[in-house]
Amino acid sequence: MKTVAILGASGYTGRELARLLATHPSLRLAGAFSARENDVPEAPELPCDARVEALDWSRIGACDGVFLCTPHAASAELARRVLALGPKVVDLSADFRLPDAGLYERVYEHRHGAPELLREAPYGLTELAREAVRIARLVANPGCYPTATLLALKPLVAAGLVDTARSIVVDAKSGVSGAGKNPSNRTHFGASHENFLAYGVGGHRHAPEIRLHAGVTDLVFVPHLLPVFRGILATIYVKPARGIDAARMRACLAETYAGERFVQVYDRGQPELNRVQMTNQCHIAVTQQEDTVILTSAIDNLVKGASGQALQNMNLVLGLDEAAGLV
Amino acid sequence: MKTVAILGASGYTGRELARLLATHPSLRLAGAFSARENDVPEAPELPCDARVEALDWSRIGACDGVFLCTPHAASAELARRVLALGPKVVDLSADFRLPDAGLYERVYEHRHGAPELLREAPYGLTELAREAVRIARLVANPGCYPTATLLALKPLVAAGLVDTARSIVVDAKSGVSGAGKNPSNRTHFGASHENFLAYGVGGHRHAPEIRLHAGVTDLVFVPHLLPVFRGILATIYVKPARGIDAARMRACLAETYAGERFVQVYDRGQPELNRVQMTNQCHIAVTQQEDTVILTSAIDNLVKGASGQALQNMNLVLGLDEAAGLV
Amino acid sequence: MKTVAILGASGYTGRELARLLATHPSLRLAGAFSARENDVPEAPELPCDARVEALDWSRIGACDGVFLCTPHAASAELARRVLALGPKVVDLSADFRLPDAGLYERVYEHRHGAPELLREAPYGLTELAREAVRIARLVANPGCYPTATLLALKPLVAAGLVDTARSIVVDAKSGVSGAGKNPSNRTHFGASHENFLAYGVGGHRHAPEIRLHAGVTDLVFVPHLLPVFRGILATIYVKPARGIDAARMRACLAETYAGERFVQVYDRGQPELNRVQMTNQCHIAVTQQEDTVILTSAIDNLVKGASGQALQNMNLVLGLDEAAGLV
Amino acid sequence: MKTVAILGASGYTGRELARLLATHPSLRLAGAFSARENDVPEAPELPCDARVEALDWSRIGACDGVFLCTPHAASAELARRVLALGPKVVDLSADFRLPDAGLYERVYEHRHGAPELLREAPYGLTELAREAVRIARLVANPGCYPTATLLALKPLVAAGLVDTARSIVVDAKSGVSGAGKNPSNRTHFGASHENFLAYGVGGHRHAPEIRLHAGVTDLVFVPHLLPVFRGILATIYVKPARGIDAARMRACLAETYAGERFVQVYDRGQPELNRVQMTNQCHIAVTQQEDTVILTSAIDNLVKGASGQALQNMNLVLGLDEAAGLV
Repeated sequence: MKTVAILGASGYTGRELARLLATHPSLRLAGAFSARENDVPEAPELPCDARVEALDWSRIGACDGVFLCTPHAASAELARRVLALGPKVVDLSADFRLPDAGLYERVYEHRHGAPELLREAPYGLTELAREAVRIARLVANPGCYPTATLLALKPLVAAGLVDTARSIVVDAKSGVSGAGKNPSNRTHFGASHENFLAYGVGGHRHAPEIRLHAGVTDLVFVPHLLPVFRGILATIYVKPARGIDAARMRACLAETYAGERFVQVYDRGQPELNRVQMTNQCHIAVTQQEDTVILTSAIDNLVKGASGQALQNMNLVLGLDEAAGLV
Repeated sequence: MKTVAILGASGYTGRELARLLATHPSLRLAGAFSARENDVPEAPELPCDARVEALDWSRIGACDGVFLCTPHAASAELARRVLALGPKVVDLSADFRLPDAGLYERVYEHRHGAPELLREAPYGLTELAREAVRIARLVANPGCYPTATLLALKPLVAAGLVDTARSIVVDAKSGVSGAGKNPSNRTHFGASHENFLAYGVGGHRHAPEIRLHAGVTDLVFVPHLLPVFRGILATIYVKPARGIDAARMRACLAETYAGERFVQVYDRGQPELNRVQMTNQCHIAVTQQEDTVILTSAIDNLVKGASGQALQNMNLVLGLDEAAGLV
Repeated sequence: MKTVAILGASGYTGRELARLLATHPSLRLAGAFSARENDVPEAPELPCDARVEALDWSRIGACDGVFLCTPHAASAELARRVLALGPKVVDLSADFRLPDAGLYERVYEHRHGAPELLREAPYGLTELAREAVRIARLVANPGCYPTATLLALKPLVAAGLVDTARSIVVDAKSGVSGAGKNPSNRTHFGASHENFLAYGVGGHRHAPEIRLHAGVTDLVFVPHLLPVFRGILATIYVKPARGIDAARMRACLAETYAGERFVQVYDRGQPELNRVQMTNQCHIAVTQQEDTVILTSAIDNLVKGASGQALQNMNLVLGLDEAAGLV
Repeated sequence: MKTVAILGASGYTGRELARLLATHPSLRLAGAFSARENDVPEAPELPCDARVEALDWSRIGACDGVFLCTPHAASAELARRVLALGPKVVDLSADFRLPDAGLYERVYEHRHGAPELLREAPYGLTELAREAVRIARLVANPGCYPTATLLALKPLVAAGLVDTARSIVVDAKSGVSGAGKNPSNRTHFGASHENFLAYGVGGHRHAPEIRLHAGVTDLVFVPHLLPVFRGILATIYVKPARGIDAARMRACLAETYAGERFVQVYDRGQPELNRVQMTNQCHIAVTQQEDTVILTSAIDNLVKGASGQALQNMNLVLGLDEAAGLV
């Protein structure tokens, strides 16, 4: 039995990790901590026996692994400190997702807190980075929109099947949990229920992350807010390279993910949120309309898009079965 | 006071018309009929004093106008028969939306029931066809997705502001009422609530309607099913013509719709379904991301996307204030 | 054309009044004001041309009527001040609903701000207080739960058909709009969507209002939070007086509300929220199960339960058709 | 590893069992069968590798246990046939819930198909019938509403803490999954979403089941349909016996359920559906209002109210850890 801690456990991703760890066969949650010492948060009940506690570095240091559910900017320095104590780290924030500190600072508009760690942190899109993750002591857990998008798009670009000289359009839709747990005008039931809208239309921080890791430059990304709690569906419009069609692209993805437990490439039909909610699955369909190929990719943003993939990465980092505790 | 009848009143668009007519200052609902004679439908309560009755041609003939809420294929012949009796007709089906019978027959896969009427029926996107509608005796009421899409896109194409040699992507999302009132696996609460998916990805019948009336050929259209009852949001990705940007496009739309009561072009912010639900409004925003311009357009699919626009057209056809009975 | 103002226009009831007034045939909204002078609220768009403005007493004084959408405690003194300037007042807060200042102070735990006005303010359950409202200059608009409950219960108690020596149970369920517009942990989408719970189980401020105006003492009231935006359904369990059954009670209610435009007593079937949402209607069914009679009563909490009934009362106070602007 | 089969696997309870069994440590799903031989159902994907197959008695006979997810009337004879082949049976239908065939026939209006088995089938409200279940070969799995109601009410009645001479009111609310998977006007998204209503107000088949197993006669039961997919909340109004109050009742329940993994009695706060959804938990609060005590009890109707409790019972029947595969 190995032990892990959650740092920044009050939000949705921390709560989701606690839910997943409650039935994990070989990891024990040794502590769910607030991001600050001397902080006694108004304890939200976790879906397990643990409670969110004030940060206690001595107990952090005794763990095998630590999940950072802290916001970007805060995570970088916490990662450095945790690593110095010994535990491996999976960081769910954006702090290590862009390996270039200059790009990071343009996108997030503050200095990076631990640039010396950028080089060693693999981008933990597990199925496509398994070997690098396995030997890492720090993993950058991908963003939710990038996970849904890249699992479908990246292998196709890498195989040269996409005409990257023509614009790729990523029209993505996320449930409200993506907006976090803090009450706001936007997350008010009256503003989200029976509603739908686009946001960040002029530019969203996940766009550079997607472009960089997909290896493309001409890509438009527009997120939307769905009146559901969990789930992301990305609809991705690409122009195939010369001589390529949807069937060829589908075959490429089927081959890429053959034998994978958490990625399913459809022969027919379309992914739906309710087939992936509460699971670590990514479901992908590839469809042709005239000379455009449309990739549809669905995940649970809190699981494969955050805490589930983080656990998948932690399992690897700690030498466990990658799928332990995940469905 | 003029009188109108609804033919095919049992579905959502018929019910919505009954709702709107209940407070109309100068139109009286003279009858809400089933599409068949000798049919005594299991009367669903209408949101007014009327009940759905078996079809009675003598009362139809006595009306000033008739709304056809009947399915495509059925509408064409009913339109001919109603016109022969005198009343003006607004047809909410697809039967007169594609002015070319050959195209119609390829898309809908059956012979057109009244091809001789195709030429005289204007495509009733009211704000862009007002004068033709005013003098028509038969109006083809536009589809819901085409209405949301064309109100934003058509004026820009017409003004030469869009690079139509590059693909236009229309990623559209509709509430469940768009799937109609008949119970099915898809419209079951358990299949739509807390869910989201794309459908018709390989090709949808509204795509030819959009391409034809927008005057473009390279346009991809993918509809999605939202877990809300009312509303469509279309997110439209276009490449501007040389030297054109979002500001120029916004100015074009603002000018096109200056003084219009039912189309609002945003200076800032994004349309949301809950600002247009239960209204005949179309809200449009124009946003730039890198070298792509994104049009977002929201309507209530049952109002501006169906019964509201039908009433707007009927008002014109009968010489009334276009906005009567509409908000 | 008479003129009205809204004081405290930023919340849901103010916004709803603005929506209703936008199509009112004989009332003009002369101003939608914040509750404070020198306050420039972050203007939420109203569903009409008006905007929320800082309080301006000179424009208030020029109106024929004023709606107070301000919180209890604040309303009482504002009512006194408005009345002194001339306009009639409909107060949507609780300040004048309990005619006994002592009871008010026990329930609301602060001194009443204008006890001298308590006696003159009728409790504006319009159908049951029409004549008093017509001649009033200040009307206490009933609470949302009391409206749904009392329209069903009060006539039966008054007619002696209920055995008031045995407990009456009112199990009521309200949409989230009843919790107001301020973001909170409770109104967060993640806490209300796909959820349901009881609240105020030990005692809720609407219980004394219901007991007092129903004329009963042994009544239990438990409200619940529904994952819908609009609507209240109250399920009321009463024991009939000796020799009385559901049919007799139904007849009493049918007679009480014969000819009323906004109350419908069902012969069969059950009220549903979606038949009353966006209307000023109250739908009531009376059903027997063994020796208990169950009253089910449905309203839109924002319309008949607040702004709609307030407008119905204002129409009467200003000598207009009671139903003007309402459906 | 023991093996089980599901008979009648196409509905929601069968699908839920397949979901739970997919991660069960010591039970293997040997077959998910339609209720009929020669039936090749339009295979709905199960949330596991299994598919719904036509009924195959030879494979049924080879199992250790069989779950009957078939409708009442059908279950009784199927139970007899399965038992004759050897496997133990947990029946999720109503067929063995009322131990008196005469009462059964009055309530369900057809002859009982296997009255000789009624006596041996314990009513599997697991926490209150554990020893009888452990030695049974046939278990009657309780109804969803009865489970939520009886876990809170039955121990209090048994302990003499309730004044059963005065009416008990059970006002219960269920998600739409309780209405089953077949499309109908009632389960259409447009009829359930953003809606709420009471049904079965004059009398519902679960009322006799509740009265019988609670050991009371004067009990009113009214179910309601919530716009959520999963979950039941029952609000139960009782009069305490002389000298008894809520604190005493809470202590009784806390003692009854001390050490139980699936029933939690609150010290403070109220149960919410979203704390029990996707779990086998029942959360109960006990609150006093004037001289009435209000029990609120929440379960997931598909888990503790159906398939979860069925699995809990099957675990016992097969000699496994009662909680295996359940959270």
